[in-house]
Amino acid sequence: MQDVSSLVAQARDGRPRAVARLISLVEGASPQLREVMAALAPLTGGAYVVGLTGSPGVGKSTSTSALVSAYRRQGKRVGVLAVDPSSPFSGGALLGDRVRMSDHASDPGVYIRSMATRGHLGGLAWAAPQAIRVLDAAGCDVILVETVGVGQSEVEIASQADTSVVLLAPGMGDGIQAAKAGILEIGDVYVVNKADRDGADATARELNHMLGLGESRAPGAWRPPIVKTVAARGEGVDEVVQALEKHRAWMEEHGVLAERRRARASHEVEAIAVTALRERIGDLHGDRRLGALADRIVSGDLDPYRAADELVEGLTQPLAGGSAETA
Amino acid sequence: MQDVSSLVAQARDGRPRAVARLISLVEGASPQLREVMAALAPLTGGAYVVGLTGSPGVGKSTSTSALVSAYRRQGKRVGVLAVDPSSPFSGGALLGDRVRMSDHASDPGVYIRSMATRGHLGGLAWAAPQAIRVLDAAGCDVILVETVGVGQSEVEIASQADTSVVLLAPGMGDGIQAAKAGILEIGDVYVVNKADRDGADATARELNHMLGLGESRAPGAWRPPIVKTVAARGEGVDEVVQALEKHRAWMEEHGVLAERRRARASHEVEAIAVTALRERIGDLHGDRRLGALADRIVSGDLDPYRAADELVEGLTQPLAGGSAETA
Repeated sequence: MQDVSSLVAQARDGRPRAVARLISLVEGASPQLREVMAALAPLTGGAYVVGLTGSPGVGKSTSTSALVSAYRRQGKRVGVLAVDPSSPFSGGALLGDRVRMSDHASDPGVYIRSMATRGHLGGLAWAAPQAIRVLDAAGCDVILVETVGVGQSEVEIASQADTSVVLLAPGMGDGIQAAKAGILEIGDVYVVNKADRDGADATARELNHMLGLGESRAPGAWRPPIVKTVAARGEGVDEVVQALEKHRAWMEEHGVLAERRRARASHEVEAIAVTALRERIGDLHGDRRLGALADRIVSGDLDPYRAADELVEGLTQPLAGGSAETA
Repeated sequence: MQDVSSLVAQARDGRPRAVARLISLVEGASPQLREVMAALAPLTGGAYVVGLTGSPGVGKSTSTSALVSAYRRQGKRVGVLAVDPSSPFSGGALLGDRVRMSDHASDPGVYIRSMATRGHLGGLAWAAPQAIRVLDAAGCDVILVETVGVGQSEVEIASQADTSVVLLAPGMGDGIQAAKAGILEIGDVYVVNKADRDGADATARELNHMLGLGESRAPGAWRPPIVKTVAARGEGVDEVVQALEKHRAWMEEHGVLAERRRARASHEVEAIAVTALRERIGDLHGDRRLGALADRIVSGDLDPYRAADELVEGLTQPLAGGSAETA
């Protein structure tokens, strides 16, 4: 087992195997999890985190790949985290439909990781932020977080990004789908991909209408742009990057970036604390203390609420490492 | 607002409105929740709790009603808790398909309550045991807990009963369904209802085979009986009561009853503690402490695990009442 500080130093140098190892350590809740997280902390905060969401078929993977190319042309180091909330599989291997990513497989300036969250204690809220921290500390300038699945988890992923990109495509009834899924509220930048197809203008118009972009806004408010792309041919992708940079600049100017990162950190701490406390209580099964409390409840000597008080009193030692450690 | 001790005294006297009021207090997580639970504690432990589970269509409601009649003939006070994990509706009103229960609506020795658990913080584990405690303290000799829905929650309900009855009916492929749902492992007594229909013997045989009842067991082990009933005509219901009493006697003889009640109390305390801690952490949103921790994470001064430690340190005051109180 390599020591954590040398792994972190290697990751910082852009060595992909060190990055992979660190993500595995934080993802698997290894005994070194806490040590890794402590070592990463001072190195984080440099990366710009962009979330990409959208229904299957809109070209998310292709768009992500095109964005990677665009950022690479700017000489930026890029991390890609493909999160699949429905898959039990995790690791460095690319998912079946993510073939386009192989364009970047040999580029040392790009780190690609797929991550499964099903079955994770604490789910997305727990697993994804830790991998983002590794990529951030490893010196990625931009981290693209792409959800592979659909649904509520997209909103959760978006809450972990600095900027959220919502992708749509013509003729998929996406406008309505997006509205249903609550996606419309989370987009900072909207992309109508496959814009060479019939109906792209209609989709953009519908979106424009649904977002109320024609209406007047408070001065200084962010007006989400709608960018049309043909990601498979790289068309419009530089415009997406420009829209992202514009949003980032706007967030910095208005203190929104700091606010979002603060909210993200709060969310992260909360998820860790809840997970740890739940595990700790679970660990008490068969424990003498819980048994004694249960006996007193059965005998009518104590009510369950007072017993819960006593149980919680016993939980004030520092938290143990990750989930695996206490399992 | 009536004071809690007089409500408890009235419930103890069998006044249905007092029982209803107490259940509403514990179910709705009122400010008096803790006071009620403390007042009930010394009065509990007298009731025999029987869980009834089975797929829709096996005649659960009819069987429950028939069991109520049988216990009433013995002069016992009976409480019925109909738990519907999928319904947002709760209260004293009978559910649509529970018309049979109206046979007992005017009987002062019977208390019937339907309970919804969807959306409940902590779900079944949190809500049902508290209502059971009220019925127990109110002097019910027997409490029948019937699940209206299906699925995993049935197993959870069963874990809260002293004795679990699994109901089946001929020709429904119930054997296989039951096996799938994990119900086969939870039955202490099996009932093949609608035994006047074709296939009742086949269902009983299949069940007998699946349960391995033909195989030899350790001396003193419980061998779950299979009772055939036609609940709508009251046939076989006295045999079910006999089987229940036999199981109860066996549990008392082997220390199993105390063991089950201890496990149930542990489970209950755990659910209350987890719910309370989760709420308490949720309450910290916008709190100065969480904000300060988040700032230190964003600046790289602190990692989220150390921050979670500090957060948990701040959670050591006695638990507040129920969910409503802290919401």
